[in-house]
Amino acid sequence: MSGTLYGIGVGPGDPELMTVKAWRLVSTARAIAYLCANGGDSTALEIARPFLPERYEAIAIDMPMKVEREAGQAAYDHGCQRIATVLETGTDVVFLCEGDPFFYGSFMYVFERLAERHSVVVVPGVTSLTAAAAELRQPLVERDEVLKVLPATMPAEKLQAELATANAAAIIKVGRHLPKVKAVLAALGLQGQAISHATQPRQSIRTLSELESDTLPYFTTIIVRRK
Amino acid sequence: MSGTLYGIGVGPGDPELMTVKAWRLVSTARAIAYLCANGGDSTALEIARPFLPERYEAIAIDMPMKVEREAGQAAYDHGCQRIATVLETGTDVVFLCEGDPFFYGSFMYVFERLAERHSVVVVPGVTSLTAAAAELRQPLVERDEVLKVLPATMPAEKLQAELATANAAAIIKVGRHLPKVKAVLAALGLQGQAISHATQPRQSIRTLSELESDTLPYFTTIIVRRK
Repeated sequence: MSGTLYGIGVGPGDPELMTVKAWRLVSTARAIAYLCANGGDSTALEIARPFLPERYEAIAIDMPMKVEREAGQAAYDHGCQRIATVLETGTDVVFLCEGDPFFYGSFMYVFERLAERHSVVVVPGVTSLTAAAAELRQPLVERDEVLKVLPATMPAEKLQAELATANAAAIIKVGRHLPKVKAVLAALGLQGQAISHATQPRQSIRTLSELESDTLPYFTTIIVRRK
Repeated sequence: MSGTLYGIGVGPGDPELMTVKAWRLVSTARAIAYLCANGGDSTALEIARPFLPERYEAIAIDMPMKVEREAGQAAYDHGCQRIATVLETGTDVVFLCEGDPFFYGSFMYVFERLAERHSVVVVPGVTSLTAAAAELRQPLVERDEVLKVLPATMPAEKLQAELATANAAAIIKVGRHLPKVKAVLAALGLQGQAISHATQPRQSIRTLSELESDTLPYFTTIIVRRK
């Protein structure tokens, strides 16, 4: 009998924003898998830390920092082989994923490799999207409005066209694309607030119009709403 | 000293998908507010039921079923007056909201009425969006993709145009708009699965191409992804 793989969204950062289900599964886990960057920290593991069991088998999947697609895919291949080996002994594995497993989540690449041959349960989590709105005290979207999630990597014209037909938008992964995003928002007469690492200890909030820097952390979200 | 109002997302339906923070605040609450339909059930209260304290002051806000804007606004006005009265005695109030408070959530209308004069904390929750993806076992969106949340009430041409420029979309509030949505998806050569009341006991999943009915529950989401 193969074990079950649980893909668990641990939420945006505050450990208390983990679900009761995530807490139950993590605190009783015998094997826990997670990504770490260049042999170092794992944000997902840090979020889950207050709920970790005393003893567990750690499956740390080392992800190269430079996200070249092939290197990342090879890391997932190798990590999933290790997870499969544990599952085949009949032991369940919990995979920790920041935010939600299927919303820009790392678990998608594990799921596509293992879901056909193993029992997999996906446990949704709080996304950085709604955590950002809560921390900014800025309602996201209501009634029959359209919400768009737009990566800041998009070309300026495309970003502007998408924003022009949205009631509400979250521009994610802002990072070094800040000047482009600011120019597009100014062209549309839109204001916005930027939040980085929502609900994590290093969270920061900045008003775009007061911002002099040309860059923000990669995990920065700008929420825009048209009244 | 006025009490604090906590706007709490209780998640999509499964009580275990409430966050640890929601569980802590609900289980120790002295006053709990929630919407109910025509003097009857409250879905948010049902979700939180396993975590309710033995005794609490209930602030049931009766919402007229026919969502005419004025009647709804009057119900919020009246409910918020009752919440404010309790806050002014120095007692905290927990407001239960299905899903997430700021993602198509009822708490937005409470927030806009009370946030200026009272201390308000917003606690994000798991949305029906990612719960639907988890239950359908269908990854939502990855990398630099665009995700759109599109209410099925949109005109067909507008819906089609938005879908044509999205990598991934969730069409929400499908209800009686199913024939229009099916026609638009067929015109674009897109497949989709529909999920109603994700993670609630009455959850149901249907494949669009096999569906003969012209209507689905109001709280139905169709997830579409272009590869």
